[in-house]
Amino acid sequence: MKKLKMGMIGGGLGAFIGDAHRRASRICNDFELVGGVFSSDFDKSKQFAQIEGIDASRCYKDVDELIQSELARPLEERMMVISIVTPNALHFPTAKKLLESGFHLICEKPMTLNVDEAEELEALVVKNKLTFALAHTYTGYPMIRQMKDLISQGVLGVIQRVDAQYYQGWINSIIHGTESRITGVWRLDPKQAGISSCMGDIGVHAFNLIEYTTGLEVKEVLSDLNLVKEGVQLDLDGTVLLRLSKNLKGVIRASQVCAGEENNLTIAVFGSKASLKWSQENPNFLFLLSDTEPTKIYKPAHGYNEQLAEAGHTMPAGHPEGIYEALANIYKGVAKSVRGEQFNPAEFPTVHEGVRGMRFIHSVVKSNEEGNRWMQI
Amino acid sequence: MKKLKMGMIGGGLGAFIGDAHRRASRICNDFELVGGVFSSDFDKSKQFAQIEGIDASRCYKDVDELIQSELARPLEERMMVISIVTPNALHFPTAKKLLESGFHLICEKPMTLNVDEAEELEALVVKNKLTFALAHTYTGYPMIRQMKDLISQGVLGVIQRVDAQYYQGWINSIIHGTESRITGVWRLDPKQAGISSCMGDIGVHAFNLIEYTTGLEVKEVLSDLNLVKEGVQLDLDGTVLLRLSKNLKGVIRASQVCAGEENNLTIAVFGSKASLKWSQENPNFLFLLSDTEPTKIYKPAHGYNEQLAEAGHTMPAGHPEGIYEALANIYKGVAKSVRGEQFNPAEFPTVHEGVRGMRFIHSVVKSNEEGNRWMQI
Amino acid sequence: MKKLKMGMIGGGLGAFIGDAHRRASRICNDFELVGGVFSSDFDKSKQFAQIEGIDASRCYKDVDELIQSELARPLEERMMVISIVTPNALHFPTAKKLLESGFHLICEKPMTLNVDEAEELEALVVKNKLTFALAHTYTGYPMIRQMKDLISQGVLGVIQRVDAQYYQGWINSIIHGTESRITGVWRLDPKQAGISSCMGDIGVHAFNLIEYTTGLEVKEVLSDLNLVKEGVQLDLDGTVLLRLSKNLKGVIRASQVCAGEENNLTIAVFGSKASLKWSQENPNFLFLLSDTEPTKIYKPAHGYNEQLAEAGHTMPAGHPEGIYEALANIYKGVAKSVRGEQFNPAEFPTVHEGVRGMRFIHSVVKSNEEGNRWMQI
Amino acid sequence: MKKLKMGMIGGGLGAFIGDAHRRASRICNDFELVGGVFSSDFDKSKQFAQIEGIDASRCYKDVDELIQSELARPLEERMMVISIVTPNALHFPTAKKLLESGFHLICEKPMTLNVDEAEELEALVVKNKLTFALAHTYTGYPMIRQMKDLISQGVLGVIQRVDAQYYQGWINSIIHGTESRITGVWRLDPKQAGISSCMGDIGVHAFNLIEYTTGLEVKEVLSDLNLVKEGVQLDLDGTVLLRLSKNLKGVIRASQVCAGEENNLTIAVFGSKASLKWSQENPNFLFLLSDTEPTKIYKPAHGYNEQLAEAGHTMPAGHPEGIYEALANIYKGVAKSVRGEQFNPAEFPTVHEGVRGMRFIHSVVKSNEEGNRWMQI
Repeated sequence: MKKLKMGMIGGGLGAFIGDAHRRASRICNDFELVGGVFSSDFDKSKQFAQIEGIDASRCYKDVDELIQSELARPLEERMMVISIVTPNALHFPTAKKLLESGFHLICEKPMTLNVDEAEELEALVVKNKLTFALAHTYTGYPMIRQMKDLISQGVLGVIQRVDAQYYQGWINSIIHGTESRITGVWRLDPKQAGISSCMGDIGVHAFNLIEYTTGLEVKEVLSDLNLVKEGVQLDLDGTVLLRLSKNLKGVIRASQVCAGEENNLTIAVFGSKASLKWSQENPNFLFLLSDTEPTKIYKPAHGYNEQLAEAGHTMPAGHPEGIYEALANIYKGVAKSVRGEQFNPAEFPTVHEGVRGMRFIHSVVKSNEEGNRWMQI
Repeated sequence: MKKLKMGMIGGGLGAFIGDAHRRASRICNDFELVGGVFSSDFDKSKQFAQIEGIDASRCYKDVDELIQSELARPLEERMMVISIVTPNALHFPTAKKLLESGFHLICEKPMTLNVDEAEELEALVVKNKLTFALAHTYTGYPMIRQMKDLISQGVLGVIQRVDAQYYQGWINSIIHGTESRITGVWRLDPKQAGISSCMGDIGVHAFNLIEYTTGLEVKEVLSDLNLVKEGVQLDLDGTVLLRLSKNLKGVIRASQVCAGEENNLTIAVFGSKASLKWSQENPNFLFLLSDTEPTKIYKPAHGYNEQLAEAGHTMPAGHPEGIYEALANIYKGVAKSVRGEQFNPAEFPTVHEGVRGMRFIHSVVKSNEEGNRWMQI
Repeated sequence: MKKLKMGMIGGGLGAFIGDAHRRASRICNDFELVGGVFSSDFDKSKQFAQIEGIDASRCYKDVDELIQSELARPLEERMMVISIVTPNALHFPTAKKLLESGFHLICEKPMTLNVDEAEELEALVVKNKLTFALAHTYTGYPMIRQMKDLISQGVLGVIQRVDAQYYQGWINSIIHGTESRITGVWRLDPKQAGISSCMGDIGVHAFNLIEYTTGLEVKEVLSDLNLVKEGVQLDLDGTVLLRLSKNLKGVIRASQVCAGEENNLTIAVFGSKASLKWSQENPNFLFLLSDTEPTKIYKPAHGYNEQLAEAGHTMPAGHPEGIYEALANIYKGVAKSVRGEQFNPAEFPTVHEGVRGMRFIHSVVKSNEEGNRWMQI
Repeated sequence: MKKLKMGMIGGGLGAFIGDAHRRASRICNDFELVGGVFSSDFDKSKQFAQIEGIDASRCYKDVDELIQSELARPLEERMMVISIVTPNALHFPTAKKLLESGFHLICEKPMTLNVDEAEELEALVVKNKLTFALAHTYTGYPMIRQMKDLISQGVLGVIQRVDAQYYQGWINSIIHGTESRITGVWRLDPKQAGISSCMGDIGVHAFNLIEYTTGLEVKEVLSDLNLVKEGVQLDLDGTVLLRLSKNLKGVIRASQVCAGEENNLTIAVFGSKASLKWSQENPNFLFLLSDTEPTKIYKPAHGYNEQLAEAGHTMPAGHPEGIYEALANIYKGVAKSVRGEQFNPAEFPTVHEGVRGMRFIHSVVKSNEEGNRWMQI
């Protein structure tokens, strides 16, 4: 299958989220990164392109230049999809220009700084019939997709309560550090982050998971947000009451100041017949609770799952997808060794471990054959 | 950083483990697959090369042709590393030829069919000063690396017991199915799989983890293997007593007939002062037990970890590495949409979800500003 | 130590909570049940007294008779403590009379039907200098007591968020059954249960745990309750926003319609330095989270715990207190056997299992002595 | 139901296991402790009897006196059941005398010091038609009983492997302390403990659980025991290979030197169709694994359980049996308060907590009634 040519706006040297998007694009193996505007600083952008092995002629000064140059290329060489991984405030102007020029987009969230901008982008996408994907990454987990399917089949009966939580603790180190650090962090600056920190950054993921898995719309909210500390200008913590219909209520709890919490996103949907619970830190376990049956644990790579879930998992049962990264770590060590770089011998198993293993298997089989005797290895 | 040119032997159409190696090589981003011998059937091999977008001229008929052609190329264009992902019986002859010709190798396990072959490869690697990595993938997990480091620092005191388990259940479906299926599965055929099924395929991983994490050598084994059912020729289950030194004993338990077990690999190392326990199905949790302190849970992406562990994890704390695959699933959906293929709307969040999210954030902030009132969304 | 003479109001034949109080009084071994008013139906009350082996002369017709008769006895023979385990509506009148007559009380919750009654009881207790215990049973768990102590020592830094949950599902079977069953259940009848079902029955436990563990007072609440279904008169589900101080907010979530949830009471207290989390269904595990240290798991029966927690656990580490009930099940089987009643042979291990065990130990030691050979058992 | 009169041999002041037996006998409420020989030191025995409120005339000097005196009493007053909780070496002579005199027994384990003694007791029990219960407490857990029933129904198909583990760490503190402490601990002294420490004390529990749950007999063993340290005379650690039939093998692993392990007893029985796993530290969770269905979690107090399991649990679902001890802790605090002893205010909830709770419920209901407004509490 021919790979789709992809561009990227933002995501240059040291950018965590840009790197994540590139890895994801390589894992699914449908894209080829051919160029972009990797930084607002053109020199840095070019430096990144060189390191990444990207053709210098497609490392552009700005989005306008990218659009002009790419549109000048024949269709089969042109970037088809562009990934936007800039700071929040640039999402809207960048996306708008690119949509107007006919590019498909993958955009980090929050999509824009306010509702008006968001609606403007939606109108453009519809009008130009383009693909636009927002990086609500958690909807890519196989067991979230299984959850959606089980609910749509009516397994839960009437839904009676929804409860989603997103707890992190990392902002503690900032607000309980020095004053200068508070103002230095862009997420706490309304100009760069928009009107909300905690709800805008993570609460919205919980919201999205509720609507994604249940297929229902939240109608009304009542919120109680907390700045937590003097001098902080945006919410770092909050609880949001939800009303989905008269008899269906729920709650979103989100916080960036829960010390020791890492990325504790959970969702529970409670029905009259059964309930479903999922937690991001153990994403391969989906729990189905019922008043009359033993609790069931769904896991990926089983025939009992729906097609949507199964298509999103490529390992056999019991292998977390993170095993690819484990194998990638081995490959990384090999690369260092082949390149003559310094590496830790613990980075990959060598032929010596291979010999040890073969001796183990040999001795084990011989011990058994000889009536369960001790064998040297 | 310039990517290393990589070849592959085996791993063509429908090969699970070849695909895993390719994904891993793309994740770490240090390799570029340029050619190989993807199948013993040359037509299938060429078909695979075309699908994968690999230059037809580097899709070779056999290993001999690959060696001849690649050695004829200038050094900077030549394959540097070759990944061997063939059935077990071909590992040795393939690896031997490639090592003799100076190629660095990444090889699936078991490395060979017997100890003599293994020792011959080891000698070749040493003599030719080549990099040889065996795919003991589990040693790539960050928390296994952290375990190794904690033990080497002496955190456990004197090691008093080691216990590793590798339980799977998938062979049940074969041996309790029809007779023809038993003979049809290559892992149960001594000619293709070697002298052992359970110990050769999975027990050896448990063995490797013990030697990797403790830095100790197993000296002697006493085994009790089980064919489980009439007509089976290789062990499908077994227990192996270990002797590492007079006062240090341990056990490996492995089975392929534990119904419902998926890939339940665990390792526990018990010391006089403290103990460490790890389980592959929740690979981001490493437990340190002590008689005098609360149990501690180590997780990746924290300053308290050693460098080797930290280097093997690229996500912030609380994000399982499998989140890359979640994001890759989103990218996959985008690719289908852009290519005009059929896809499920649940495969990626669109601009509409973006609008919903912005409305949510807006309403939440407004509800709070107006004294915790209900707001429509 | 001389046992305290105890009376009981309510809790007769088939009463679950009365039985629980009696078991608890026998476990701690400081009380002796000598009489009471076990039912509003005097015949049933007498029947219960006989079965329980209680002196018929102290099985009273009503509370007034109990008071009169007991006060007529010499002090050392008189009931000192009375346990009130009647339906909710009788708590107040019963407690009032008994307090006025100078009895110490243990009372089931909710203490009364409304705040005025509650305050009247409080005034009486203070005036008469009596002991009054309310059955907030969860505060008796060792790890809840450890949580309280750790917080009072300042381990968490500044508390920034509290979150307690109490989810059950058992009312689903009632409200989704027939209409007649809805009206037949006293908890759904405002006259018997008071103004609230979910919050009055279980939400208040979550509230109590927050105030107990943090030592703080909740100042204000904002609630959103849900009747869930047409025809129900009391809340079966709800969320309560909490304000403990300007910068300390929290939430209580409680429900009786979360299908499949059993008794899922959890509490989490998040601080600037660390956080504590506990869950009732695994009550021996208390988790301390921090941004800079591995998560720690506190368990009972360790020197690292505070005195209050340790005094509440009588088993060695790793033995859940429920092991007493396991042993009690063995004793129960013995009683059946000795009495010549029918019993299942699986109810207790006999001398035969003893012989088997001795043979096992003998063979195991001999196998080892003889160089790890197989031994018959 | 009339209580059975019970005597006790051993278990006096400070004895942990005697106290556990007494608690268990009070929980099940079928026994009344009327006398015994609580210590080999008669003065200490009398002291204990006084504290426990036991009639001095039934606190005997030795077992012979007990037998003579009790047999002289009329049948309905006589001790029917005697609980033996002495050090191991006294189990046999004590039990023998009592069985010869016609008493029913409950005996701590190991039943005797060797096989011959055990068989002699078995013969006596059979001959005299007496009830003899051995304290294999773990068989009293409801989920172990459920496991037995599920297996006997054939839910697992053909059993293919059994694996039981019993890991503790407490002996580390002894063997890594001073020499004098090693000899001071009776469990490490062959004269008092018999031929085995680890296998005799805990390995035998694992063995018993295997035979109890599967209903099968272990035919042969091959063991590898470890003294762990110079100067130790009994096994502190070991692995035992099991043969139940030609195609059914298994393993018991037990250790007293696994630092940080508390009482980690687990059992797993693997079948051709499904498998069952249970762990003592979370005794209310029984896992049923299958290759084709989601893993199921069985818990006590559900209609889906067998009668034997249900009869062994007296709390509603989700309440661990340890909740009785939580309630007993509340009662304990009340006793201290009533007796005028010093106590910690955190030991029981008072009327004040009752008032707080009523205010909470009141405010919560009012906030909801008034359109989700903040209410003071």
